[in-house]
Amino acid sequence: MTDAIGVGLLGLGNVGGAVATALLERAAALEERAGAPLALRRVAVRDPGKARDAALPPGLLTGDAGAVVADPAVDLVIEVIGGEGAAGALVRDALARGKHVVSANKELIAKAGPELFALARAHGAALRFEASVGGGIPVIAPLLRDLPANRLSAVRGIINGTTNFILTAMAQRGAAFADALAEAQALGYAESDPTNDVDGHDAAYKIAILASLAFGARVPPEAVAVEGIRALAPQDFRYARELGYAIKLLATAERHGEAVLARVHPALLPERQPLARVDGVQNAVQLSGDLAGTLTFQGAGAGPGPTASAVLADALAIAAALAAGAPPPWDPGPWREAASPGPGAIETRYYLRMAVPDRPGVLAAIARELGEARVSIAAVEQRETQPERGTAELAIMTHRARESAVDAALAALRLLPEAHAVNAVLRVEDGP
Amino acid sequence: MTDAIGVGLLGLGNVGGAVATALLERAAALEERAGAPLALRRVAVRDPGKARDAALPPGLLTGDAGAVVADPAVDLVIEVIGGEGAAGALVRDALARGKHVVSANKELIAKAGPELFALARAHGAALRFEASVGGGIPVIAPLLRDLPANRLSAVRGIINGTTNFILTAMAQRGAAFADALAEAQALGYAESDPTNDVDGHDAAYKIAILASLAFGARVPPEAVAVEGIRALAPQDFRYARELGYAIKLLATAERHGEAVLARVHPALLPERQPLARVDGVQNAVQLSGDLAGTLTFQGAGAGPGPTASAVLADALAIAAALAAGAPPPWDPGPWREAASPGPGAIETRYYLRMAVPDRPGVLAAIARELGEARVSIAAVEQRETQPERGTAELAIMTHRARESAVDAALAALRLLPEAHAVNAVLRVEDGP
Repeated sequence: MTDAIGVGLLGLGNVGGAVATALLERAAALEERAGAPLALRRVAVRDPGKARDAALPPGLLTGDAGAVVADPAVDLVIEVIGGEGAAGALVRDALARGKHVVSANKELIAKAGPELFALARAHGAALRFEASVGGGIPVIAPLLRDLPANRLSAVRGIINGTTNFILTAMAQRGAAFADALAEAQALGYAESDPTNDVDGHDAAYKIAILASLAFGARVPPEAVAVEGIRALAPQDFRYARELGYAIKLLATAERHGEAVLARVHPALLPERQPLARVDGVQNAVQLSGDLAGTLTFQGAGAGPGPTASAVLADALAIAAALAAGAPPPWDPGPWREAASPGPGAIETRYYLRMAVPDRPGVLAAIARELGEARVSIAAVEQRETQPERGTAELAIMTHRARESAVDAALAALRLLPEAHAVNAVLRVEDGP
Repeated sequence: MTDAIGVGLLGLGNVGGAVATALLERAAALEERAGAPLALRRVAVRDPGKARDAALPPGLLTGDAGAVVADPAVDLVIEVIGGEGAAGALVRDALARGKHVVSANKELIAKAGPELFALARAHGAALRFEASVGGGIPVIAPLLRDLPANRLSAVRGIINGTTNFILTAMAQRGAAFADALAEAQALGYAESDPTNDVDGHDAAYKIAILASLAFGARVPPEAVAVEGIRALAPQDFRYARELGYAIKLLATAERHGEAVLARVHPALLPERQPLARVDGVQNAVQLSGDLAGTLTFQGAGAGPGPTASAVLADALAIAAALAAGAPPPWDPGPWREAASPGPGAIETRYYLRMAVPDRPGVLAAIARELGEARVSIAAVEQRETQPERGTAELAIMTHRARESAVDAALAALRLLPEAHAVNAVLRVEDGP
């Protein structure tokens, strides 16, 4: 049997604990899969003194993460700390020492991927990150390896479980955003500061990674147009359902010629679309290729077990290559920078909700402004909201229109006395 | 750049044509992915004189498949002929010559897999078959490669597009089986002799392959309990919908200790289960692991493009390994023979539909027989069917019961004057 492959683990939170436990309790099965034993040599934690669930052999824990990376007995570093700062420095140090790295760190890969891949290449090391997107769902390996003959046209997904839990509560129980968020926080699905999730930044990191891999062109996270879900109201879900749609925080990346348009925003999805039925904390990623058609991968997008499953798949792939004397597995880079066509390239149907005065001629005036901007109405619903104050609510579904035309129409509407306020503007994602 | 890898193609039907076209038209992109050019050297067809859509360079076609396999310029053989006989002999010949093989042949892999893997191993050749299950959906590679740390408990799927098209037509439009079959035949989704699809044999080959890979224990196709869809009636779909279920031809393989229970039969699936919403010719495969949870992979289960996508993914994986000087990719065997716990191990809810006389006391008599066999009723619906003849129809949903108990109850019911005929007995698959 080949020499053992020494593993250094950075981080022992929920995910790190699950990884360590699996490495210890499943050692025999993992060795059989890898062709070599995976030996957990050191584990870096913030406070080695703290009591823990994961029962580790004494002496494994250290507060000095740098020492784990530097340890000559460590061949493979698993980083489950998260964030750019400390984790980034440790990953760079490991790669510079020619050590293989498995990371679950979407922020680091999205922001520094090309630099890290180049560093890995220069030192003959592998860098893998299956767990950075979609938790336990195999997404990155299939994307890089199972569709090589396809020209991919789009990658889309529901890749943030926190917001999907909130949107599902709003859709199924008519909950208000604030109440659904509080429930998610109480259940541990949302952090006390939910900004990173509910404003779409977490999903933006993930779609930036998927887009870069799908199109072989680097899409930095700052190139992703992001809208969060704070502005959604319970009645938006009611109108959407009546029109035959679900509302999801959708992350999409589409190829436009050689340019890539990546965005994260709430969208109306037709009920027949598989992504429309991905509820709660489930995630799903959809890949569209010219040969394979559209594929949907669904499963648990987070949690210790699923994330450990993805981390260990990467670790075993590296170990198997080492045991077989093969070069370290694939290298996604180098990438050209992707051009962006800009959101002006978007042409789709739009859902608009606005507050209007409850009197004759209002709909006509609004329809006129839309028509002048070449945005035509496909369906409309008007409801009395505050009879005593004579205001009503108008929900409009447009036909396909260019986003630039809709922006122009909205600018005109906002000047119109007949439109008190445009409270929701949501894209309809009909494809694929 | 590495030497070209010579490809010999066996079969130039719809799938073979798509594979040949992609090899020729995407040569540059495929070479970039593989690290070496894939050169299509020979193509075996039944009639080289026949006119074809795929525009091939002159001289590639031959009527002598054996010569393609024997050609020293052919390193990799792609078999898209299908069936055991001729295709099996050619695949064995190729492997015995140390040539790598990519096959889309579910019947051959299901029946002769272990023998073929041993032959490949003995001659240092790779044998891959992603296209044999799920068409363009990456299933076999993720199963073998992306969940290595998991202990898998179940594999289930909708893996026959013909029957799913028929069942979808029956469910959505109330079509009778014969009419839905005729429509599928008219559209080219079903063959003139539909036995292999509608009686479940095609799905049995596929679940035998998935079960063997998931549990590392060989499940031969003859060990799969098979029921087809011919006996389903439109009202079964109506009753199922009223109870909150869809009816699908489900292929399942479950681990029971060290034994594996594999079966193919129509089943009621709760609407919340993703497989319940896989309609038309779409396929989906669901994998349940102890770390990752349940993953669902959905996409096109057949067709030239999707199948070519899977075939070429295998071919490129082999080519990349050769170009990198690595050993040929994974080898799923050797396998122990899986023990079967027998269908007695099944415990689930059951849906029963029977014709009964339309008079008092009938339900009581039937309920008594079920109760004596320890099968209790969860829901029941009785409808007048032929008032003039005084017959009615009874649809019963049971609570969870052992299959052996249900079999005993059915034997007793068939002796009962109060039950004219039991016309449908369907399992309810509530999990995962």
